[in-house]
Amino acid sequence: MNGPGTAHDARRYFALPSPFRMKRGGELHGASVAYETWGELNAARDNGLLILTGLSPSAHAASSVDDPAPGWWEGMIGPGKAIDTTHWFVICVNSLGSDKGSTSPASIDPASGEPYRLNFPELALEDVAEAAHATVNSLGIEQLACLIGCSMGGMSALAYMLLHPGGARAHISVDTAPQAQPFAIAIRSLQREAIRLDPRWDEGRYDIHAQDGDRYPDIGMSIARKLGVITYRSAMEWNGRFARIRLDPEQRDDDPFGREFQVESYLEGHARRFVRHFDPNCYLYLSRASDWFDIAEYGNGSVHEGLQRIRIERAMVIGVSTDILFPLEQQEQIAKGLEAAGATVDFVALDSPQGHDAFLVDIENYSRAIGGFLDRLGAD
Amino acid sequence: MNGPGTAHDARRYFALPSPFRMKRGGELHGASVAYETWGELNAARDNGLLILTGLSPSAHAASSVDDPAPGWWEGMIGPGKAIDTTHWFVICVNSLGSDKGSTSPASIDPASGEPYRLNFPELALEDVAEAAHATVNSLGIEQLACLIGCSMGGMSALAYMLLHPGGARAHISVDTAPQAQPFAIAIRSLQREAIRLDPRWDEGRYDIHAQDGDRYPDIGMSIARKLGVITYRSAMEWNGRFARIRLDPEQRDDDPFGREFQVESYLEGHARRFVRHFDPNCYLYLSRASDWFDIAEYGNGSVHEGLQRIRIERAMVIGVSTDILFPLEQQEQIAKGLEAAGATVDFVALDSPQGHDAFLVDIENYSRAIGGFLDRLGAD
Repeated sequence: MNGPGTAHDARRYFALPSPFRMKRGGELHGASVAYETWGELNAARDNGLLILTGLSPSAHAASSVDDPAPGWWEGMIGPGKAIDTTHWFVICVNSLGSDKGSTSPASIDPASGEPYRLNFPELALEDVAEAAHATVNSLGIEQLACLIGCSMGGMSALAYMLLHPGGARAHISVDTAPQAQPFAIAIRSLQREAIRLDPRWDEGRYDIHAQDGDRYPDIGMSIARKLGVITYRSAMEWNGRFARIRLDPEQRDDDPFGREFQVESYLEGHARRFVRHFDPNCYLYLSRASDWFDIAEYGNGSVHEGLQRIRIERAMVIGVSTDILFPLEQQEQIAKGLEAAGATVDFVALDSPQGHDAFLVDIENYSRAIGGFLDRLGAD
Repeated sequence: MNGPGTAHDARRYFALPSPFRMKRGGELHGASVAYETWGELNAARDNGLLILTGLSPSAHAASSVDDPAPGWWEGMIGPGKAIDTTHWFVICVNSLGSDKGSTSPASIDPASGEPYRLNFPELALEDVAEAAHATVNSLGIEQLACLIGCSMGGMSALAYMLLHPGGARAHISVDTAPQAQPFAIAIRSLQREAIRLDPRWDEGRYDIHAQDGDRYPDIGMSIARKLGVITYRSAMEWNGRFARIRLDPEQRDDDPFGREFQVESYLEGHARRFVRHFDPNCYLYLSRASDWFDIAEYGNGSVHEGLQRIRIERAMVIGVSTDILFPLEQQEQIAKGLEAAGATVDFVALDSPQGHDAFLVDIENYSRAIGGFLDRLGAD
């Protein structure tokens, strides 16, 4: 947390071309993208490394002088770390449609002077990719040395490379998928339904800036987040971590059927930290964009053919065996497709117990893989 | 559906001893258990076979003259089927606490003349087992030839055998667990939370017999059921069955963020068939009882020791590799424990793609296993 009177914020903003035309037909006027950077762009402008994020993280991937708070990938990015900021010029972009600084359903629609809410145009991950690409270009970078995409950001990265052949020399794909499978669609659909069915969502007309008060879909957001956390981790990790340990009596709530086991308290903690810190309409738009993304659209209905249209020199594709949301087979599919497209591909199957979230938690193994790949890349 | 004027109902009722004392301290007065039977008890009274059900099924496991509607295990039970009613006297009991005829939170509390609702005493699966055992005894059966338990009913069956050594000669354990692991607890906790957070649950005071009208927690029940269905099936099955097939435009709903993919429509259909057909308070009680059950309580904190206290001659333990709610390792644990207790145990690991629900769907493989085991048992 920042101290009183201070305003630590390392975000910069890029004004997108206006109008910014979107894949599914809408357009935005006066839209912008928030981003942060670490390290310095070299004279050849060939050490740029872009990170595209999962659904909820901001552009604040790591601390900096301007914002010393730890970022969401703090263990991975910095001087001497796997993504070494003494070598790479690292950029992290807040996805278009997210409320962490970029234009989103929570932003003011210049046409009405009111927040967009559900008047925001239909959002696709291709739009997220185009907004990121325009931001990178605005920094004087024609070709990224490496494009890293994590989770939903991995799908955005595939879109980036498809839409901009030659836009990246190398790619690191982290815990992602070339298309959403029905299990992931079912989970996300149920998360969206929990929010939409909350009467306080009110067709998107809740109080966006509610800090307290009840005009906000806390219940729906809480259920959506807990379901997310359940699918982001793994049963195996929880067997070791929580087993059947019960809460102390004073930690239990008094509600009938209230919390009794540690795992229930863990989920509650996650929900509390999220519910009022991510805009519900933004969640709906980004969640649906994740379901819509399908690289097979670019390959005559074939994932493999779609991936073959990507032109890069090298790639590393990382997945974990305990991921139930983006199963390892999908990462293998990406690796095979990029290889068939002519790239030199390292496929890394980790057995981290943490499930989909392993990339945020098992920093040791992810650092070894990503750091090794980037070191070889930088040595060329 | 039954025709007008007909009342097909094969249920019989057993009045439990009154008061019926429950594991966690409460008691019921004038309680009863609904059950159905198929086949005939032989003169030696040694061909009794009891089926204990999962959380939501009724005692109507199969059709009969009195109720020709197909039962929930119709493919498994009948003349010449795996559970052959020309040989076995088959009993299926509606769990105490379920609203399909047995005394439950939806029943009238004789003390108040009103439904119990949350005044129903705390329910444990040991109570479900005791009520079933008393029902079996009332039919003149001291020892079951075989006790079959499916899903939650498998835990009730373990309780039955622990509390009544010699109560069954053989046991078939189907897709169950010796205790709930944290992943299963997390899923069930979230299902309960969805119901409890629905304002129309109203602390259990909704309109129990609502056929329409809005004093009923439809939203919470719908979310709970969809989450159930997601965890009862498997991602693998859905990849083949739904892939990314979209609904025809006329099948979509008009809501923003409404259904678009077939898998979403499938979940919606399941929810619609369930929401007003299972009492929400009963759901809460049985769900929590499932979390509470822990055979380690009977083995000084050890599952293996708890299982070793069960005295049976033979057992078959069946599980499927795609079950995420009751993972195969837990069935293996049961098999090893019963074997260490001295039983002859067949462990059957199926690779049915249907997940936890395989026992209801993959009748071919379950018939072969269960039928084979019962044939060998009957030949002795």
